Amino acid sequence: MKGKITRKHIVEMADRLFYERGYEHTSLADIADSVQISKGNFYYHFKSKDEILAAVIELRLENTRNMLLQWEDGGERPEDRIKRFIDILIANQADIKMYGCPVGTLCTELSKLNHASKAEASELFTLFRTWLSRQFALLGLEAAADELAMHLLARSQGVATLAQAFQDERFIQHEVEQMNDWLNSKVNAK
Amino acid sequence: MKGKITRKHIVEMADRLFYERGYEHTSLADIADSVQISKGNFYYHFKSKDEILAAVIELRLENTRNMLLQWEDGGERPEDRIKRFIDILIANQADIKMYGCPVGTLCTELSKLNHASKAEASELFTLFRTWLSRQFALLGLEAAADELAMHLLARSQGVATLAQAFQDERFIQHEVEQMNDWLNSKVNAK
Repeated sequence: MKGKITRKHIVEMADRLFYERGYEHTSLADIADSVQISKGNFYYHFKSKDEILAAVIELRLENTRNMLLQWEDGGERPEDRIKRFIDILIANQADIKMYGCPVGTLCTELSKLNHASKAEASELFTLFRTWLSRQFALLGLEAAADELAMHLLARSQGVATLAQAFQDERFIQHEVEQMNDWLNSKVNAK
Repeated sequence: MKGKITRKHIVEMADRLFYERGYEHTSLADIADSVQISKGNFYYHFKSKDEILAAVIELRLENTRNMLLQWEDGGERPEDRIKRFIDILIANQADIKMYGCPVGTLCTELSKLNHASKAEASELFTLFRTWLSRQFALLGLEAAADELAMHLLARSQGVATLAQAFQDERFIQHEVEQMNDWLNSKVNAK
C-alpha cells in the first residue's frame, strides 16, 4: 500500500515538473529530488524518465476520463457541459499564463522529440474531442459534431498559447466570452 | 564576406533544427555537425547555444518584418492581406503537421525554460499582432482592431497545435475556410 502511494506521489510530482519545465528539461534527478525519498526507493519504482512519462500520461488519461464522466453525470444540458470545457481556460488561467495548456504543450514537445509516447499523449486530445463531439450530437448537431468539437478544441488551444506568450488574463476572458457566444449561436441555429 | 555567409548559414541551420527538434533537444554539437565546417571556424562565430538562439530570433524577426512589409507593398486591399496571413496555414501545412507553428512552439518552449530570450521570441507574435491590427484598422474597424488581431492569431495557433497532434490536412483546410468566412463577416458588417 505504502509502495503504491509512493509511486503515485512520484508520478504526480513528475507530472507537475514536466508541465512547468517541459519533459526534455526535467531530469530523472530533478524528479527524485522533488519527491524526497531515497534513491533506492525511487529506482525501485522507476528505472527511466520514459517509464515515468508513460505513467504520467496514464494518470492524466485517467483523471481526464473521470472529469469528463463526472461532467456528464450532473444532469446538465449538453450546452452547459460544453461550457464547463470552455471554462477550463478561466479556472486554470494562472497556470495557463505561466505554462500554457498541459495537453497541448506536452503533445507538441513529444512530437518534436519524435518520442515513442507521442501517440499516447495525443489520446488526451482524443478524449476531449470524442466527449465534445458527443455533446454536440446530443444537441442535435450530429452531422457536424466532430468538426465543431475540433473547432472548439483549436480555439481553446490558441487562447492558451497566446495567453502564455502575452501574459494576458483579459484576453482569456474576452475569448471565453466569444466562445460562449459561438456556442449559443450553434445551439440557437438548430 | 565569406565569414558573414558562414555565420548566416549556421544561423539558418540552427533555426531549422530548433524548429524540428526543439531548442532544448538540439545540442551545439548537432548544429556544428549539420553545418559541416571545422570546430574552430564554428566556435569563431558562436560560443554558446544561447548566442545562436539570439541570432536565430533576430533572423526570424528580420524575415517576418520583410514578409509583412512586402505584403503591404502589393497594393492589395487590407482584407486580402489578412487572407495572406490566414493562408500561411495552407502554404506551410506539411511543416505544421510535423512540427507545429515555428513561432508558437518556440515561445512555449522558451517560456517553460524561463529562458532569457523568451521576451525576444514573443516579439515575433507582436509583429503579427501589430500588423494584423493595422489591417483591421484600415478596414475601418479601429475600435476592435487589436482584439480582432489577437483572435485571428489565436485561431491560427490552435489550428497548428491540433494539426500537429492529429496529422490532419483536411482539418486545416476546413478551419482556413472558416477563418476566411469570419473575416468576410467582419468586412461586410462594417
